[in-house]
This record gives sequence, C-alpha cells and structure tokens, in this order.
Amino acid sequence: MRPELLERALSLLPTTAPHPQSVQQELARYFAMLRDYPIRGGKGIRSELLLASAQAHGVQVGTAAWESALWLATALELFQNWVLIHDDIEDDSEERRGKPALHRLHGVALAINAGDALHAYMWAAVHRAGVPGAMEEFLAMIHRTAEGQHLDLAWVEHREWTLTEADYLQMVSLKTAHYTVIVPLRLGALAAGLAPDERFTAAGLALGAAFQIRDDVLNLLGDPAKYGKEIGGDLLEGKRTLIVLHWLQTASAEQKDIFLEQMHLERPAKDTATIADIHRWLMDSGSVAYAQAYADAQAKEGIALLAEVLQDAPDQKAAARLVGAVQELASREA
Amino acid sequence: MRPELLERALSLLPTTAPHPQSVQQELARYFAMLRDYPIRGGKGIRSELLLASAQAHGVQVGTAAWESALWLATALELFQNWVLIHDDIEDDSEERRGKPALHRLHGVALAINAGDALHAYMWAAVHRAGVPGAMEEFLAMIHRTAEGQHLDLAWVEHREWTLTEADYLQMVSLKTAHYTVIVPLRLGALAAGLAPDERFTAAGLALGAAFQIRDDVLNLLGDPAKYGKEIGGDLLEGKRTLIVLHWLQTASAEQKDIFLEQMHLERPAKDTATIADIHRWLMDSGSVAYAQAYADAQAKEGIALLAEVLQDAPDQKAAARLVGAVQELASREA
Repeated sequence: MRPELLERALSLLPTTAPHPQSVQQELARYFAMLRDYPIRGGKGIRSELLLASAQAHGVQVGTAAWESALWLATALELFQNWVLIHDDIEDDSEERRGKPALHRLHGVALAINAGDALHAYMWAAVHRAGVPGAMEEFLAMIHRTAEGQHLDLAWVEHREWTLTEADYLQMVSLKTAHYTVIVPLRLGALAAGLAPDERFTAAGLALGAAFQIRDDVLNLLGDPAKYGKEIGGDLLEGKRTLIVLHWLQTASAEQKDIFLEQMHLERPAKDTATIADIHRWLMDSGSVAYAQAYADAQAKEGIALLAEVLQDAPDQKAAARLVGAVQELASREA
Repeated sequence: MRPELLERALSLLPTTAPHPQSVQQELARYFAMLRDYPIRGGKGIRSELLLASAQAHGVQVGTAAWESALWLATALELFQNWVLIHDDIEDDSEERRGKPALHRLHGVALAINAGDALHAYMWAAVHRAGVPGAMEEFLAMIHRTAEGQHLDLAWVEHREWTLTEADYLQMVSLKTAHYTVIVPLRLGALAAGLAPDERFTAAGLALGAAFQIRDDVLNLLGDPAKYGKEIGGDLLEGKRTLIVLHWLQTASAEQKDIFLEQMHLERPAKDTATIADIHRWLMDSGSVAYAQAYADAQAKEGIALLAEVLQDAPDQKAAARLVGAVQELASREA
C-alpha cells in the first residue's frame, strides 16, 4: 500500500502503554503483532481503487474530501489486514506476504486476539474519515465477506464437493467482490459526497469474480517469489475453485477418486506426492485455461460496465486510471 | 439479558439472504451460529449496569435517550457474545452457558468467522444508538480488553509463572474491569448527554478486580448447574488466578513441582487425576479465602467510591439500584 496509508494505519496503533514495567515487555510483543501484517506491505489494490474512484468522482488531492478518502483507504487496508490474520488461521495457511503466517509465529490464540484488535482499529479509521454513509458501507462489506467466507470454510469443513460452478461463483461474489471492488468504488463516491452509482455492483461482481479466479490460477502456477503464499496451498487447504470444479467434470473416475480421497483428509494427513500429482493433472487439463478465459470474459464485461458508469465522471483522467487499475485485476502476475 | 435487548440484538442479525437456493441452506446454518450465543442467554450484568447508570444520570424510560441507552446496552451484550466465541476458542473451553462452546459444535474456522461477523453487528448497534462519544468508548474498551486478553493468553502460551499478584491484577484491570464496569458506567452518562465522571475509572477498577476474582473462585467451587462452564476449567486451561499465585508462595516444593509440571503440558496432555489433586490442594489451602477477602475489600472500596460519585445523581432511586447491582458482582453465586 502507499506509504502515506501505512503511516496513517500505524499512527492509529499503540506503541507504548501506561502500564507497570512488569507487563510492558509482553504488551510490546502484542503491539508488534498488530503492526506485523501492515508492515509486511500488501499490494494495496483495494485502497488504490478507492482513491482512483474518489478522484474520478471529483475529489481533489489536498482537500478535506481527499483527507477523508485517505482515511477510508486506510480503513480498507486495515480491514484487509485483520481479515488476513483470521483467514490464515481458518485455512491454517503457512505463509503470508512471504513470511510465516501470524498464528504460526505466535500461536492461534494470540493471533485471533490481535486480529480482533486490528478489526477495532479499522473502525477507528472509518470514524476518523467522518464520511456519512461510510460506516453502513463497511458493515455491509463485512457481512457479505463473512457470508462468503462461511460458505468457503463450511464446504471444506463438510467435505462438500457436489457443487456447481454457479455455487462457486456465488461464494466468490460474497467473499471477494464486495470488499475488493464494489465497496472501494462506492466509498470513492461517498468521499466525494455523492450517492454511489448502483451499476458499480454489477461491474464489481464481474470484476471480483475475475480477480478471485485469477488468484486461484496464480495459486497453482504463480511465481512463488512474487505470490507471497505457498503455491498449491489451495489444494492442501481443500479449497473449491472454478478450475477444480471444472476439472472434476472431465477427470477419469480413478483420478477423481484419488482427488476426493485426499480432499477428505485433514491438511497434515494429505500425501504431498499425491497432491503434487493432482497439481500436475490440473495443470495438464484444459481447466486452468477454461477458468482464465472465464475470468477474462468477466473482466471485459466489468470493465465495459465501469467505463459506461464513468463516462460522465468529473475527472476523466482519474476515471481512465481507475479503469486501468481494474484491468490489472484479472491479468496480474502476483 | 433483558428480553427487549435480546430482541434488539436479534433484529440486527440476518435470517434470510437473497441468494440462490443452492447456498441458502448453508447460510441458514451461519445465521443460526450468529444467534446461538445470544439466544443461550447471558446474565446481562453489564447491560443492567449501563441502564441503571443511564437512569441514575437522569435518563427516563420511554424517552429518546432511553432508546439510545437500550441500543448501547444491546451493543454491550453483542460485544460480550462475540468476545466469548473467540475467547472460548483461545482457551479451548468446552462449555459456554451450559452447552458446548461454538467451536466445538462447528469447528474453529467457522466459529472465528461467526465471531468476526457478530463483532461488526455490535458496531451496527453502537451506530444505531447515535450517542456522541459512544464509538470512542467502545474503541477504548476493545483495546484495553484485547491488551488484557493478550497478557492472559501470552502467559499461558509462554508458560510464564514467575508473576506477582500485581501482574495478575494489572491483567485483570485491562481484561475485565473496563468492559464489565468502567465502560457500562460511562456509557450510562453519555446516554444522558453528560460527560462521565472520571472517578468511575477508579471505582470500576476496584469492582472489576472483585468481579474477576469472584469468577476465579466460582471456577473452583461453583455450582456446575448455575456456573455454565466446567468447574476447574481454569486449571485445565492453565490460567493465572490470584488464588494460584497466592498458593504458589506457600505450597510445598513437591506440590509446586507437580503443579508446574502439569501447567507445562497442553490441555489434552494434562492428567485429570493430578489436576483433581491440585484442585483439592487449592481448596484446602487458605488461598481461596485470601482471594475472596481481597475481592470483598475491593468491592467495598469500589462501592464506596461509586456511592460518592452518585450522591448528587438526579435519580437517587436508580443510583441505589446501580449500587445494589455492583454489590452483587463480588458475591454472586454464578
């Protein structure tokens, strides 16, 4: 994320506490946990969308409205960070941004607690922005994301594989589209004091699907140095993806049996050699190309819709930058 | 909690979602998870303190200010509920309010997610109250509680037993006093449109310590039917308590070695017969009486301070009810 957003995020987080020396040292560890993920540095995709949307809606750098937009962007980054801490526990992920996940460094209990605190600091940033309607926007965003997250996790928990591509897309629209695209676009309008265009939802649903499917593709074939998470992690975590659901329709009965057998095992019980076989089957199938083509079509549709919404935007240069930023979502390499 | 608060809390939570049939069923399970802990029914101690404080500060039932106080009380109950969901995971507790803890019913991942969502619904209730200053109050409350929770959990995680009674009391003041007493008292004032009396902090710190120590005592000798959690659970979870820290100063070297050996084991590895021995040693020592006497003294001090603050309160009947409610904190049986 932008240095000025990281600076704002860190300015909200404590560094010292007025407590006796005896507990100071342990609390210093806690404060360091709160700062860890933000300092590792995310790509800041969502905050960039929000700021570009604000500018496209007429917010000028240096004004009070820009200051509000920066606080909303900071809140969005804090959202991303607390969600990732909890998400990494929920998936028992190994890595985040190229380093061990927080719960692997400090244990599950302390990491849950740090995520909860960071969640509250996110609300401090929302409050600081002072933008009418922003709080409702963050509430709706968290609720949709939690619903999608529930579906994703429940399907893993219940070993549910009799799912259609439509089920997957519904999950993704909840889990990813709102916080990645729809809400950043809407918050940009609110920062400008305008009611968000309702067509942002349809555009964001298409772009969000494109973004998540691209993420699923990168999880299989990304560059480990750039991706920041373990390649193939989705298979170890038993995640549903469009690639896997598509492949299951064409796989041989034998391969399907082997796949489902592995997916019914807990992560530590999975056989890494067999998972590597499955990884190769997926790569050799047409399913990665199928999913990427689906993502490309969704991206195209979303971009067209977004360009249409923005055609009368007050700042056309910013609008073009916004369209450029979403164009990267479905084709990014990391 | 009061039926009218439960009703308000449930009115914020979703029961149906405009999603395709295929995911409806799983989302219905998620909605039920959000409602589970609130429906189990807590004692509502904190919301009662808040409402009594509001009345003592002059808020009259049926007014707009009372409506605001009810929403703040609802938010406080939602805070308690999401914190308990996460707390039960962090401690790997077995029971909550006489039933299995949420993560024991649905797994850790889904329970973390449900707690996060309930956290956001808490903010919806704070927002609904529309009371200036309330958001800052909830932010400070969560931050202090998370700091205390970190100390509590970190001492378990790091097998830290070289602690003084002062360390324990510092942890308790952060973990318990703010959300149990100080913030409910302050929110009552804010609901009345008044600046909270700063002496509420000192009163609440004393009363919060009394409350937590009483809880530690009940965890050892409470009536299982009333207490709602497993008796002796703190020992299995390796929790620091004033009772244990006091007992460690007087225990024989042999008993101390046995105790520390058990406390260095993970919960499932602990020997239940040995834990039962330790439980008996604690009960037979003077340390339970010592802790209860300390709690009684703190309660007395807190009540005197509170009575002093409230002597000019506009509604003396409500003020007396408030003092009566806090009196129960340190002497309750469940």
